[in-house]
Amino acid sequence: MTIISLTTDFGNQDGFVGTMKGVIWGIAPQAQIADISHEIPPQDIRSGAIALWRAAPYFPPGSVHIAVIDPGVGTDRRPIAARLGSQFYVCPDNGLLTPLLEDAQQAGLPVEIIHLNQPRYWLEKVYSTFHGRDIFAPCGAHLAAGVPLEALGTPLQDVLRRPLPRPQKTRQGWLASVLLIDAFGNCTLNLPVSAIPDLTRARLHLPGGQEIHGILPSYGFAQPGDLAAVTDSEGFIEVAVVNGSAARTLQLALDDSVTVTLDD
Amino acid sequence: MTIISLTTDFGNQDGFVGTMKGVIWGIAPQAQIADISHEIPPQDIRSGAIALWRAAPYFPPGSVHIAVIDPGVGTDRRPIAARLGSQFYVCPDNGLLTPLLEDAQQAGLPVEIIHLNQPRYWLEKVYSTFHGRDIFAPCGAHLAAGVPLEALGTPLQDVLRRPLPRPQKTRQGWLASVLLIDAFGNCTLNLPVSAIPDLTRARLHLPGGQEIHGILPSYGFAQPGDLAAVTDSEGFIEVAVVNGSAARTLQLALDDSVTVTLDD
Amino acid sequence: MTIISLTTDFGNQDGFVGTMKGVIWGIAPQAQIADISHEIPPQDIRSGAIALWRAAPYFPPGSVHIAVIDPGVGTDRRPIAARLGSQFYVCPDNGLLTPLLEDAQQAGLPVEIIHLNQPRYWLEKVYSTFHGRDIFAPCGAHLAAGVPLEALGTPLQDVLRRPLPRPQKTRQGWLASVLLIDAFGNCTLNLPVSAIPDLTRARLHLPGGQEIHGILPSYGFAQPGDLAAVTDSEGFIEVAVVNGSAARTLQLALDDSVTVTLDD
Repeated sequence: MTIISLTTDFGNQDGFVGTMKGVIWGIAPQAQIADISHEIPPQDIRSGAIALWRAAPYFPPGSVHIAVIDPGVGTDRRPIAARLGSQFYVCPDNGLLTPLLEDAQQAGLPVEIIHLNQPRYWLEKVYSTFHGRDIFAPCGAHLAAGVPLEALGTPLQDVLRRPLPRPQKTRQGWLASVLLIDAFGNCTLNLPVSAIPDLTRARLHLPGGQEIHGILPSYGFAQPGDLAAVTDSEGFIEVAVVNGSAARTLQLALDDSVTVTLDD
Repeated sequence: MTIISLTTDFGNQDGFVGTMKGVIWGIAPQAQIADISHEIPPQDIRSGAIALWRAAPYFPPGSVHIAVIDPGVGTDRRPIAARLGSQFYVCPDNGLLTPLLEDAQQAGLPVEIIHLNQPRYWLEKVYSTFHGRDIFAPCGAHLAAGVPLEALGTPLQDVLRRPLPRPQKTRQGWLASVLLIDAFGNCTLNLPVSAIPDLTRARLHLPGGQEIHGILPSYGFAQPGDLAAVTDSEGFIEVAVVNGSAARTLQLALDDSVTVTLDD
Repeated sequence: MTIISLTTDFGNQDGFVGTMKGVIWGIAPQAQIADISHEIPPQDIRSGAIALWRAAPYFPPGSVHIAVIDPGVGTDRRPIAARLGSQFYVCPDNGLLTPLLEDAQQAGLPVEIIHLNQPRYWLEKVYSTFHGRDIFAPCGAHLAAGVPLEALGTPLQDVLRRPLPRPQKTRQGWLASVLLIDAFGNCTLNLPVSAIPDLTRARLHLPGGQEIHGILPSYGFAQPGDLAAVTDSEGFIEVAVVNGSAARTLQLALDDSVTVTLDD
């Protein structure tokens, strides 16, 4: 029994995702399939990369993660598959794996990346507008069914990288930015709380002029409607409005700058 | 093979739900997982309780229902698990189980509730902002994998209750209210049709002044665009606009009052 | 292990779909269940028929497809089940199967349609407002669990048909129309590219006066923001705005006419 996850920008309306599951189960009928997200904003590779990076490590070893945010579908951008540590990935070569790849390399885990160039593992008829169904789903399913990674293609060294924006150390603290806005409107910064020596003394300076003092363990430590900073579920600083939407209330957008200083 | 259901307010965009499935399958790889809803309005415990109450009884005995609408995550609100009759539940102690618990007690079914206080059944690292992933998913998965309820925590008597609003008997009939508005815009009242001795003689008085005479078996017994009352799929009175949205057309909102009388 | 797919207009908010899965797994605990779509516009039988027609053929032989877009629920419209070639279908008799049925008949595949009139395969209590849960889900699950089609009902000849609009041959080429608008805003015409002898010479005339010259293999062959025609994932002509929404940019709607001519 192997686990497959799916991450796409296909939405849930048109049947694209269900079609991929039909293809997968035709090849690997025992596979369990989890949807990570199909509501990645269209063509937004970075958001897809972040969603995958945050979810995939919670899957059991041997899981196969298929990710299709693919504005270059049908052009000469390469379809790839990878083993990063104990997990497998199948996606276009457009940077979707960068955060996971950097983590794996930093942790010294085994990394193997191949160019999916063996059409015998694809659907017989490949349309240039839906490689999710015709290439990525069947290759992921073959992996889940036991075909070794090496059989699906040839090694590839020059994978395309699209690193996430990094926070900058400043004299007074950090210049961070909004990396992720979730469905609640919570805004996660690209700065881990581990960078802050004392959470109670942290001070966030938001683009609209608001300030937040202290980083709380969770939302319930402030009152409904309060502006608060908390530790998000991956250990990053998150700007939240309790039981509300920080993004809407503060007009925060992706990549907005947030300065973090330390009170005396 | 055990069935697990998931009910949350996490939305389907951010990968939170997929992450929980990864955690579950790491512990209980054979579990089948059904999504009940992830579009419960944020922090709306009552809507979550209603969705769970209406869906869970249709699952086979032994199913494990994980529900996470959890504004108090990370505070001292307790994580709990319960056996109500033949089904299991895992959720925060905030009233999510009340309608199911009342039904079980009224039916004389076995009820057992525990405080989830055994961290060896949680993920190793627990973040205060995502107990869905770090506590509820693993505890539910351990239940599905055969760990007895009693092993996951200690008995708890004072579960928090949040009863649904009840209809009031009046001299002329009933004062009911809108309990639930579904995605079609159909408005379910908190009054079962079984309270009405003769459906053809029922008369509904809506807050906007409109009246509906008679309760039909289904939508197709009126014309498209007609305002109608029908028996909903749990036996409650439902206000509908055929092939339209009663909520939008009539500007009906949750908790709006609807008087039901009986014609002579 | 049998595969079941679900296609409905129930949305993902209210738990209707999860309830159906609970019913299915009570009868066929091993079934794998894929969602094709639950965001079919309410009561839009044609959109449901198109989604099912495009997705179902990618499922393995023996799959059971349950489709519930059912404005006539609870009236005397018949619940039906069908075998078309190697796949099974369960749905109301309202035209949902027409495109698949026409394809099967044109391909000379075995076709068998029955009226689901054996209540012993339904839930014990059938509500007139939710046959998806009370009739279609259990009948589909019984099929998946091995009950023969013939046991579920009696043969039916006069299935209701609702054919899709067809393109018309004109002196200069084709008068086509918009059959489908996907979540990206791509607009698929009812004209297959196979009708065009030379894709590089095709010229599309859009209702807003715009023209598109040539049909490309995929989006990436034009620049972001460009208006383009491509071959969609089923071989039909698709009008797209690269990395944008053709439907929004061009104000295209379902059934809008598009003329296709051939340049000299």
